[in-house]
Amino acid sequence: MSSSLTNHQVRLAKRPEGTATRENWKFTTEPVGEPAEGGVLVKTLSLSLDPAMRGWLNDAKSYIAPVEIDAVMRAGGIGRVIASKNPQFAVGDTVYGTLGVQEYILIPQEDIKRNGLVKIDLRVGTITQWLNVLGMPGMPGMTGMTGMTGYFGLMDVGQPKAGETVVISGAAGAVGQTVGQLAKIKGCRVVGIAGGAAKCDWVVKELGFDACIDYKAGAGAVREGLKAHCPKGVDIYFDNVGGEILDAVLARLARKARVIICGAISQYNNANSMPGAGPKNYLSLLVNRARMEGIVVFDYADRYHIAIAELAGYLKDGRMKSKEDVVSGLDTFPEALNRLFSGENFGKLVLQVAND
Amino acid sequence: MSSSLTNHQVRLAKRPEGTATRENWKFTTEPVGEPAEGGVLVKTLSLSLDPAMRGWLNDAKSYIAPVEIDAVMRAGGIGRVIASKNPQFAVGDTVYGTLGVQEYILIPQEDIKRNGLVKIDLRVGTITQWLNVLGMPGMPGMTGMTGMTGYFGLMDVGQPKAGETVVISGAAGAVGQTVGQLAKIKGCRVVGIAGGAAKCDWVVKELGFDACIDYKAGAGAVREGLKAHCPKGVDIYFDNVGGEILDAVLARLARKARVIICGAISQYNNANSMPGAGPKNYLSLLVNRARMEGIVVFDYADRYHIAIAELAGYLKDGRMKSKEDVVSGLDTFPEALNRLFSGENFGKLVLQVAND
Repeated sequence: MSSSLTNHQVRLAKRPEGTATRENWKFTTEPVGEPAEGGVLVKTLSLSLDPAMRGWLNDAKSYIAPVEIDAVMRAGGIGRVIASKNPQFAVGDTVYGTLGVQEYILIPQEDIKRNGLVKIDLRVGTITQWLNVLGMPGMPGMTGMTGMTGYFGLMDVGQPKAGETVVISGAAGAVGQTVGQLAKIKGCRVVGIAGGAAKCDWVVKELGFDACIDYKAGAGAVREGLKAHCPKGVDIYFDNVGGEILDAVLARLARKARVIICGAISQYNNANSMPGAGPKNYLSLLVNRARMEGIVVFDYADRYHIAIAELAGYLKDGRMKSKEDVVSGLDTFPEALNRLFSGENFGKLVLQVAND
Repeated sequence: MSSSLTNHQVRLAKRPEGTATRENWKFTTEPVGEPAEGGVLVKTLSLSLDPAMRGWLNDAKSYIAPVEIDAVMRAGGIGRVIASKNPQFAVGDTVYGTLGVQEYILIPQEDIKRNGLVKIDLRVGTITQWLNVLGMPGMPGMTGMTGMTGYFGLMDVGQPKAGETVVISGAAGAVGQTVGQLAKIKGCRVVGIAGGAAKCDWVVKELGFDACIDYKAGAGAVREGLKAHCPKGVDIYFDNVGGEILDAVLARLARKARVIICGAISQYNNANSMPGAGPKNYLSLLVNRARMEGIVVFDYADRYHIAIAELAGYLKDGRMKSKEDVVSGLDTFPEALNRLFSGENFGKLVLQVAND
């Protein structure tokens, strides 16, 4: 049956310096094959595209191993089991796993755990919701930035209190939208930072943030925007971008502020993994008795189910929206990935590989 | 009586760019005068010299107001009450307060609280111990770096656990020696960073640190030293210096490390208050799920007595030493202050103005 299928794949051809272009990738095809005893065959439906993916292209030590040259590009996603010789997975099951940027994945029994393959229930959320607000990384490296990161970053590191001011960069992204909407539910004043007037408008109108600062509106826009929208300073800053925006927010911290370091998109395209300038205003941490703390979501794996239950409740009762930006077709992957860095996506970026 | 006395003073003549030199100061004399009703007259015995003083010379917003041009240089110190019209202070009392770099201070009743004037008990500790391991800032701005900073920075922000590795820059200074010895008492492995082989030797032999890294020993000395002496990474870093040393330690953090930002001596002599490069390795906080947090000791004022009692106990039973480097004579102040930045002092730097 599946032996007649052809698998289209996107592989890493060479490591990019700076922005990855189409020449960093190669497109391959191979026959799919049949699962051996204990294995499963999964058809990819949709893949999660995340800023962390850019980091995996660098040959540098991080908390996730780099993608090897010639390997299928790593990606987390949702698929359908189409053949199974494993009693834990039946044909027709919807699964979440490290599927890779390819149409099919044959997972031998010994790789199932490492792959992070788990069944998901589409009654709890839709495919795109499972990749967004309900998104969880099944294993280190599957997906760096999802609803779980937003949830545990805000709740565990940020510890929001009603009435506090929460600022979120990358406000229209997968993490940003979860953090902002959750902070609103917790009674905070929420100010986003995003690129472009249209996106800022969307963040306020669609996601319900109190305000959104357009960092592309010219020199000093972030500084002025923070002054206008955070008159009492910033109690919690959820940093998705690093760079100059981090510095601008550091300069506006309130006493006992918490800065959550989640990612640093502005730094990812640098050639090294931890490059560029550090936050020159870091001594604001001293003046304001503030703290800056990193979060890696995998540490919270034993509590994902709690976060998912809470967030799914908010999605069901309409207090939270899950906004996705869906791009179709495996062959669009190189350009789709770059949308994350050019700031084109409105909402969580999803690559739809096949219709359900 | 005191009306016949002459007060020698050191005043700020102009703000330094970079290192303060003798031409930034002026030396004045004026008659002392008598206290009015409710006031006290204090004779300065010894002054605390601290890295934070350099920051007060800049005309920049910080958590402490700058010293005004022509004002007597601000300094915390210990003195003796020599005339009093205030029932709370008797002639002969030893006091701790914002005495300033001068031989006498006449404090009117309405300024006593703001000055931070408090009686101290020389049975608990000697004059120099009160300026060092037992040192407390009586008011915002009096003294930035003392035993209290070390105590609350390590215990409250660092939260040391036995067996952890604690690294301390400025190891031979007032804060460093308190932090290191306290961390040893709490069962930690303690590695200092200091400038010069002689000072490192002193830190290990006199203060009992497990090791001390000489940052002046050449390029890569700190990196190599951390690798050698912290094979499992750094659990707690107490940063007194900022700059490249902070970056080197960030690169060696252990999981869930705590970085305590206490000061940034290497940055103080810059013309602006928050200048220079930020820590370019700050994303190590993300990789290692670590946190970096500022401490301002004044926040702990209601618990100073607890820390003093604990530390005085260690001094009495010999588990902790209070090491001071005493310079004599008010007129040596300009050069004495710079010893903090040239790294010449072994132990807490104290300016003795008069014999007790």
